[in-house]
Amino acid sequence: MPNSNRKPVIDAGTPKVKFPKALTVKSHTITIIPRYCETDQAGVVHHSVYPVWFEMGRTELLRENGMAYKDIEKAGVFFVVAQLNIKYRRPAEYDEELELETVCSKVTASRIEHTYKLARCSDGTLLTEGSSLLACVNRQGKIRRIPEFMYPQSQSSVESQR
Amino acid sequence: MPNSNRKPVIDAGTPKVKFPKALTVKSHTITIIPRYCETDQAGVVHHSVYPVWFEMGRTELLRENGMAYKDIEKAGVFFVVAQLNIKYRRPAEYDEELELETVCSKVTASRIEHTYKLARCSDGTLLTEGSSLLACVNRQGKIRRIPEFMYPQSQSSVESQR
Amino acid sequence: MPNSNRKPVIDAGTPKVKFPKALTVKSHTITIIPRYCETDQAGVVHHSVYPVWFEMGRTELLRENGMAYKDIEKAGVFFVVAQLNIKYRRPAEYDEELELETVCSKVTASRIEHTYKLARCSDGTLLTEGSSLLACVNRQGKIRRIPEFMYPQSQSSVESQR
Amino acid sequence: MPNSNRKPVIDAGTPKVKFPKALTVKSHTITIIPRYCETDQAGVVHHSVYPVWFEMGRTELLRENGMAYKDIEKAGVFFVVAQLNIKYRRPAEYDEELELETVCSKVTASRIEHTYKLARCSDGTLLTEGSSLLACVNRQGKIRRIPEFMYPQSQSSVESQR
Repeated sequence: MPNSNRKPVIDAGTPKVKFPKALTVKSHTITIIPRYCETDQAGVVHHSVYPVWFEMGRTELLRENGMAYKDIEKAGVFFVVAQLNIKYRRPAEYDEELELETVCSKVTASRIEHTYKLARCSDGTLLTEGSSLLACVNRQGKIRRIPEFMYPQSQSSVESQR
Repeated sequence: MPNSNRKPVIDAGTPKVKFPKALTVKSHTITIIPRYCETDQAGVVHHSVYPVWFEMGRTELLRENGMAYKDIEKAGVFFVVAQLNIKYRRPAEYDEELELETVCSKVTASRIEHTYKLARCSDGTLLTEGSSLLACVNRQGKIRRIPEFMYPQSQSSVESQR
Repeated sequence: MPNSNRKPVIDAGTPKVKFPKALTVKSHTITIIPRYCETDQAGVVHHSVYPVWFEMGRTELLRENGMAYKDIEKAGVFFVVAQLNIKYRRPAEYDEELELETVCSKVTASRIEHTYKLARCSDGTLLTEGSSLLACVNRQGKIRRIPEFMYPQSQSSVESQR
Repeated sequence: MPNSNRKPVIDAGTPKVKFPKALTVKSHTITIIPRYCETDQAGVVHHSVYPVWFEMGRTELLRENGMAYKDIEKAGVFFVVAQLNIKYRRPAEYDEELELETVCSKVTASRIEHTYKLARCSDGTLLTEGSSLLACVNRQGKIRRIPEFMYPQSQSSVESQR
């Protein structure tokens, strides 16, 4: 059922969340262990799973910066994937330890770009590379300016001139 | 983002939907072709996919009765899965034609029971059997009486005595 | 890849499949109805679902050309996604009728490029655009030349000069 | 099942794996953080995700006993889900910390029963309960006796009389 009714406060549109002053961590690495259901009959992880892992990478990078994405949503700020690019170099296998590095590579007035590198932990082999562009929207799905704290200090002034 | 804000009418709680007088179709069969991503490295469909197919069976059974589940949600009525039981007899394979029969087997004041039979079309082999119990809830997730039109005429009177 | 032990004949490496002489259909459109489980709490289809739909588009385009992908796998020829690019323009919603057009836009000695256009049937609004690059590999996962019949007649001669 | 052609050694059918003498750990608890894509438009985790989590619980319980499921598969022993029962008591939400307790509740000659309890970490509320029955099969998918080391010492003798 719709969130608003289960969490009335949220849809009151009143941010109950304290945001950090700025995003200080630009890069973060998480460990991923492919699940059995993430493999396909070719014996490797299905290509549609990587976008899910990338999203996990973004979530944890944000957490490293002191906040949870769910709290951003509670404040009425939403990030939707506007663009996604993936290069699959080598297959990932069930239950092997992987390392996903997520980098916040660019921030503009209403978009955030991330780049991703997924590697096998055992030998460091690069398996997949990717990038995504997130658009910031309000509850109505209209493009909006991203929260000030998400600007790198230097870039903020630049962007604000746009 | 929450539905309510993208579809304000919906959350106004004012049903804009015309419901049929009664559910007349008790059973319906749909064809399913397993997707590649639904298989796992064992070379067969992963067991977590069947609940998804069962849900599709319920959706189409409802459509056979003249309405879409999304319209029921728009009217502020929601059905959540309270119980699920599945017996996996034989594996389903990628791209083979399957037939899923969904039967509405019981309706009570706040619950609907369905039973499922999934068979291979080529030879009729029964692959999977299952049943589910749906609970009817309102926007707040509180158990509520199911819409009157969902009662079988005969049963309705019985149930209403409860 | 087929499970050799469950289908010994297949892995004997002896193609039991008759391929068409050439791929004559370059473009094909299928209808897609988003499943409930394909939505996320933002109330729209999750961005990781589109690659799955694109794969369905490729499968049906191939079928339009007279063969099933599973038969190609049985013949020891496999296609793996090497690259994927998606532009998300507008969200897709649960149970709304969508049209996915899949076009085989380029064929080289070992790669096949497809482009995708996903639109809402009700008003023709373009929701998503994408492209993918498939690499042809053998059972061992080594890059191999794609089956001759997959070349457009004209292009075949060109490619074969490489 | 492993892809024989990509991992020839595996399908040589020669177990390269050392099994522990016995399963000593009967119960294990893991932490789960629901992913964004695991939610649906009702704003909670979709019911088809729980079987995936249960499988993760079994995998980690096995690891606690000193082995990886993938190594069992390498030895030509496979476990397929024959039965699944789930009671959904309360919904799980995106990014909230959950605890899944997996218990190996019964072992017979060819089947293993597990029970599951999923609870919210913050307040210990029980969200979901379930049980599953795994059947042990060989590469050909035929029912086979489970590896001796999987019997509880006491039970082994009992079962072997069957």
